[in-house]
Amino acid sequence: MSTLLDTIAGVRSEVCALHAELTRYELVVWTAGNVSGRIPGHELMVIKPSGVSYDELTPELMVVTDLHGTPVDGHGTVEWGNPGLSPSSDTAAHAYVYRNMPDVGGVVHTHSTYATAWAARGEEIPCVLTMMGDEFGGSIPVGPFALIGDDSIGRGIVDTLTASNSPAVLMQNHGPFTIGKDARAAVKAAVMCEEVARTVHIARQLGEPLPIDRAKIDSLYERYQNVYGR
Amino acid sequence: MSTLLDTIAGVRSEVCALHAELTRYELVVWTAGNVSGRIPGHELMVIKPSGVSYDELTPELMVVTDLHGTPVDGHGTVEWGNPGLSPSSDTAAHAYVYRNMPDVGGVVHTHSTYATAWAARGEEIPCVLTMMGDEFGGSIPVGPFALIGDDSIGRGIVDTLTASNSPAVLMQNHGPFTIGKDARAAVKAAVMCEEVARTVHIARQLGEPLPIDRAKIDSLYERYQNVYGR
Amino acid sequence: MSTLLDTIAGVRSEVCALHAELTRYELVVWTAGNVSGRIPGHELMVIKPSGVSYDELTPELMVVTDLHGTPVDGHGTVEWGNPGLSPSSDTAAHAYVYRNMPDVGGVVHTHSTYATAWAARGEEIPCVLTMMGDEFGGSIPVGPFALIGDDSIGRGIVDTLTASNSPAVLMQNHGPFTIGKDARAAVKAAVMCEEVARTVHIARQLGEPLPIDRAKIDSLYERYQNVYGR
Amino acid sequence: MSTLLDTIAGVRSEVCALHAELTRYELVVWTAGNVSGRIPGHELMVIKPSGVSYDELTPELMVVTDLHGTPVDGHGTVEWGNPGLSPSSDTAAHAYVYRNMPDVGGVVHTHSTYATAWAARGEEIPCVLTMMGDEFGGSIPVGPFALIGDDSIGRGIVDTLTASNSPAVLMQNHGPFTIGKDARAAVKAAVMCEEVARTVHIARQLGEPLPIDRAKIDSLYERYQNVYGR
Repeated sequence: MSTLLDTIAGVRSEVCALHAELTRYELVVWTAGNVSGRIPGHELMVIKPSGVSYDELTPELMVVTDLHGTPVDGHGTVEWGNPGLSPSSDTAAHAYVYRNMPDVGGVVHTHSTYATAWAARGEEIPCVLTMMGDEFGGSIPVGPFALIGDDSIGRGIVDTLTASNSPAVLMQNHGPFTIGKDARAAVKAAVMCEEVARTVHIARQLGEPLPIDRAKIDSLYERYQNVYGR
Repeated sequence: MSTLLDTIAGVRSEVCALHAELTRYELVVWTAGNVSGRIPGHELMVIKPSGVSYDELTPELMVVTDLHGTPVDGHGTVEWGNPGLSPSSDTAAHAYVYRNMPDVGGVVHTHSTYATAWAARGEEIPCVLTMMGDEFGGSIPVGPFALIGDDSIGRGIVDTLTASNSPAVLMQNHGPFTIGKDARAAVKAAVMCEEVARTVHIARQLGEPLPIDRAKIDSLYERYQNVYGR
Repeated sequence: MSTLLDTIAGVRSEVCALHAELTRYELVVWTAGNVSGRIPGHELMVIKPSGVSYDELTPELMVVTDLHGTPVDGHGTVEWGNPGLSPSSDTAAHAYVYRNMPDVGGVVHTHSTYATAWAARGEEIPCVLTMMGDEFGGSIPVGPFALIGDDSIGRGIVDTLTASNSPAVLMQNHGPFTIGKDARAAVKAAVMCEEVARTVHIARQLGEPLPIDRAKIDSLYERYQNVYGR
Repeated sequence: MSTLLDTIAGVRSEVCALHAELTRYELVVWTAGNVSGRIPGHELMVIKPSGVSYDELTPELMVVTDLHGTPVDGHGTVEWGNPGLSPSSDTAAHAYVYRNMPDVGGVVHTHSTYATAWAARGEEIPCVLTMMGDEFGGSIPVGPFALIGDDSIGRGIVDTLTASNSPAVLMQNHGPFTIGKDARAAVKAAVMCEEVARTVHIARQLGEPLPIDRAKIDSLYERYQNVYGR
């Protein structure tokens, strides 16, 4: 058991610490964004508690749930140390992603300003920057409008991302969700998603950005994901 | 008396501390924004002193006034500890809200950039984001142009907010006022008001955001305010 | 002499400290902005040294000059402690203002982004916000294009400001200069100038802001400058 | 040898410290920007390691390479202290600049938002601000689209900059590269490039900026570079 307890403690620390990147890059205000991480090798995940401000987060406050988003605590004892707080109200969407995308180890949700603005128009972000080729391998796609409360959001995320190179999806009228091999990679995708959403928005304010050929996008993506070793 | 003195001290501390959220989220510059809180069960409120910079605020500098905005100090002795400073020049508007909306426990006024830009055009912010459905239950309305110096501003706030789900009103050519069950909730509304004002502005710069059905907005608002337990 | 030495030391400290407000409100990058203050009752001023970064400023590095911008050091001894640094390259403009506007005790120059954008188009900022009525008493005017090297910039500032209520002028293709009864008031004017430049810019991006009647602007300005006691 | 070791240590410290200016002025997110400096008098340069976050940079982590971007370490011993990290993925472009522009002592690459937006449209930034005349001596030019992996990016930078007064070039669909007599001057050029990219962008959002005559631009540039002593 000590291995699992150590693993949970490690993921809790990492997930907690990564929330500071959301505030550092101004992707979130108040409590409106969350990071989760899978417990490798187990049907478990760790996620931000609901309604707790970023300043007050500690590893101990992170909530361990199963992959349906239900808080769990070992064998009914307190050994996993759940804090008695509810997991984020977006937990069902995170859990759906882990259930259906086995290679995903981290999920992030924000309402970052520029990405959410594209989402409000239901418009994908075209790939007109070499850094978008590197990180996203093409445009950043839009997912369907979906109400919270069942699996609609999670299914919209999974269906959209499985048809794209991109680790980011803009859920219509809502905001971005990003994935990664671990929580840190999902946070990086959230940071880069807002960065390209902002830069392409600003480029388009004064005219049309120049397109990049599909073959060149593929070349950038191939190199960055493989040769460059990310 | 000690209960009232303790309550006053508590509201003073909370109102003082909440001004740091206005600067953290860049809702204010110089001294141009203020938070107040009702003293529950008494015809009293606590508000920022006029002309004092946010860096210099301490709980002791907060001013206790009656619900007409006149500084009061207990039975004519110093036991409530008013600092001899004038209350914010916006005190009359805050006081009018407390007199006429008994469930309101906190009021915030800022000139936050994007909300004030909508106010300068006299244009309400349409509800095109799920987070607006959650927090505002529809569009953020515009209140009338009103000069400082009598109850015009307060009356404009109250008349507009009583006809809306929204805890925020954009006073024309002036800026936003927000309310909440306590000062913290009013500050959250001010933060979220600027956030959605900015996001919807940016969305509209490059086209029309997609509307959200009224029934879906009602569903989001109902869930967030009731089921989700805020 | 000790009175003058104390006065110089006081102005040096204040002028030095006020540069931190320029960086706090992001009005300047690198070394591109400066504050000066008059030595009351003397034909002297204190100004930022040229080319020194804001992090490295100390009161001792501030340069004392006469009102033609020439560094002076008492009776030829070191008692005024000039640091051997050159005064800001904008010193001639500051000095011209002090020579020709005897009530001015502080001058600030920045290239703050939104104010400079209006200046690049040579367009005054219309008074469409109540806070502009309060602080500027009308629109913020544009001064002429002028090259550095003689009194052209100073004369453009003085000619424009003497014909306006505004303590801020947008020098064409260049940036804002602001004045005040002391250096702190000039810094406040610089902060508020950028704030209204940004807010009115953003308002106009999506339509025309609603005008405010001249009589209402006068009422706001009168109250703020006189009744309210600024 | 001790002189070279000392020189390397000095450049390492300076290059490391200058990365903090990139984050301070928000020119970079995550690890997407880099500074390098030439080792004067040697065919060597110092550059940021690949994939290391700005918070974790120390002088010891900076990588010494030859002017083809290959890490080198003295005479095959460890005396130059290379950390075993790869140099930045942009090293080939920096190295090409040092090989072909002998007066250049520092190179900076970022994806700063507004400069990159101009680059995405392939549009040069027109010289409509006196500070652009001072620092850039005219417009900021656009370089060709070039893929990473050979000398295409470096050649595009050098060809464009040798035909311009500007120390900054906007590589199409990619972002800015800047040069200077040392690393600090190249960082200043990167900061000023983003500043004028942003200001001219915002000016153009609401109309056309007023042009500045070529003769006046030359006068500003001449004075700033020579008379003013930069």
